[in-house]
Amino acid sequence: MRKKITLKEISKRFNVSISTVSKALKDSPEISERTRKLIQEFAKEHNYKPNNIALSLKNQKTKNLGIVLPEIQHFFFSSITTGIEKCATKRGYNVIICISNETFEKEVINMEMLANGSIDGFIMALSQGTQKAGDFHHIKEVINRGMPVVMIDRVTEEVDCDKVIIDDFKGAYDAVNYLIDQGKKKIAILTMPDYMGSVGKLRTEGYKKALRDAGIEIDEKRIVKLDNFYNDFEAVEALFKESEVDAVFAVTEFFAVQAIKMAQKSGLKTPDDIAVIGFTDGIISKSSSPSLTTVSQHGEEIGYRAASLLIDRLENESDEEPPYTKEIIQTTIVKRESA
Amino acid sequence: MRKKITLKEISKRFNVSISTVSKALKDSPEISERTRKLIQEFAKEHNYKPNNIALSLKNQKTKNLGIVLPEIQHFFFSSITTGIEKCATKRGYNVIICISNETFEKEVINMEMLANGSIDGFIMALSQGTQKAGDFHHIKEVINRGMPVVMIDRVTEEVDCDKVIIDDFKGAYDAVNYLIDQGKKKIAILTMPDYMGSVGKLRTEGYKKALRDAGIEIDEKRIVKLDNFYNDFEAVEALFKESEVDAVFAVTEFFAVQAIKMAQKSGLKTPDDIAVIGFTDGIISKSSSPSLTTVSQHGEEIGYRAASLLIDRLENESDEEPPYTKEIIQTTIVKRESA
Repeated sequence: MRKKITLKEISKRFNVSISTVSKALKDSPEISERTRKLIQEFAKEHNYKPNNIALSLKNQKTKNLGIVLPEIQHFFFSSITTGIEKCATKRGYNVIICISNETFEKEVINMEMLANGSIDGFIMALSQGTQKAGDFHHIKEVINRGMPVVMIDRVTEEVDCDKVIIDDFKGAYDAVNYLIDQGKKKIAILTMPDYMGSVGKLRTEGYKKALRDAGIEIDEKRIVKLDNFYNDFEAVEALFKESEVDAVFAVTEFFAVQAIKMAQKSGLKTPDDIAVIGFTDGIISKSSSPSLTTVSQHGEEIGYRAASLLIDRLENESDEEPPYTKEIIQTTIVKRESA
Repeated sequence: MRKKITLKEISKRFNVSISTVSKALKDSPEISERTRKLIQEFAKEHNYKPNNIALSLKNQKTKNLGIVLPEIQHFFFSSITTGIEKCATKRGYNVIICISNETFEKEVINMEMLANGSIDGFIMALSQGTQKAGDFHHIKEVINRGMPVVMIDRVTEEVDCDKVIIDDFKGAYDAVNYLIDQGKKKIAILTMPDYMGSVGKLRTEGYKKALRDAGIEIDEKRIVKLDNFYNDFEAVEALFKESEVDAVFAVTEFFAVQAIKMAQKSGLKTPDDIAVIGFTDGIISKSSSPSLTTVSQHGEEIGYRAASLLIDRLENESDEEPPYTKEIIQTTIVKRESA
């Protein structure tokens, strides 16, 4: 890797954010003229020239794909890496993974580091921090430098590139319909607050649409927004005790399994008293008892398709860049015991 | 990354394994003289000079740590990456992860690729393929080039470097003792065949020692070696039906949860009829019902300690290299409902 000054080092020198440095270098009027000048001069002195790197890269393929993901602790993202590895190995590429840990800062640092000669292109999913900040300059920058990016799952309309997503809305719609078909009418959703990204929101919309289409009234108290894994479950227990619920659609498999445990504690049987359907077909769904009926997101297929798109673009030899595509991977319901 | 010919390219050229190329370059008598000569000449022509790279690296820190792991789908290894990330972030380093997918080939390719200027040092766990092959030249090579390596969990005595391991033998011994203390006498172990690495073997030895120390006879039919996740469970069910077992020590949390499900199917209650204790305190242990009593391996601590050791060595400014250390992380039993 060539030694050159990085955005991070410049941001440290001036004690400002990476986003500020990037905007200053692009002469954005959002930044004060004085700061812009200081940063631009410093960057020039220290030889910060992102565009030069692109030129040297053009002629030098690393045969490495760079992957930047928010986390790999949960099954969905780790199964995506499996799919990427399979496609990459088949086509003679290596895979380098970096984790943003859901922060904007780490996502920027990782992308800058990898773009600095280690890889030919990116596959990435936005961190929660980036979604919250709404700042995508680092992604646009690598694309402008001629390095292709494929965004997966957590994407944004603001960046023009190849994308592979799942249909969260339809996945949720199908799951709730599956419960309705079994005669369930008092269906609760365990979802996430809106600030945690678009996924919880889309699945909640799918839930509402399914109820509306079936002529079932939407009851706000059955929409439970859980902040994280280890609290707020009292709200769920209360719903169960008041017999306000005969089925649960949970937007994660962990929520689903916790719902089953809550029901058992309240003396209710799954699926007879409370049917439960989850989202993500991971190892938890298979291990729980009763085993979990769930929406499979096909993470491995998402990874495989993303790697195919990226490698196709890298190996494109025509003078014209092919148009960007958006692939939508359909979810399916895996039927087991809980619903 | 500098363009130079790689071991992989040489191996392709001659249609031999990477291991053969490496041995030929070291003039090993294991390889025929003719092949040795051909490979050496080709490498020389194409400027293959691993030792030159070490020199250029000495003066150029990347502040990146390279991680090579067999897989990240299971909780143990993904929690190790969390620990590494935490320590690295705190001390100003980035983390780059590559997956060997349990193969020797991929492990070698990943290490060669990363050692080629992208990182300052390695944290790695051996793949099953490497353990089976007993070939560690690629690890010795990067160490010889002056790049420190910390081996974790799956280590070998054949490589001299810093190591962080857990005490698999004692973890198993403690787990089985925990069952014995509760009056259990017919204790089965669900373990893995020996060829899958040292971990299953050490845990089985800990199991045997605990029984011997308690004066309980070892019954070979209670030692069940499971090849993978989805078969062989009939053997377990048969044991349960014949009332040959009152407790199970499972060397993975997945085996443990499957044992609970088997017991339930046979009409047996956990923990009263069959107590179950697992290994690894992952999300499955917390989600299962009853929740799983298990041996925590403290994967996050292993990762954190490994990153500390590596960074300490990288930042060592004295002329002498500090001696290699072997840290043993003690396991603990997390008491829940299943035992």
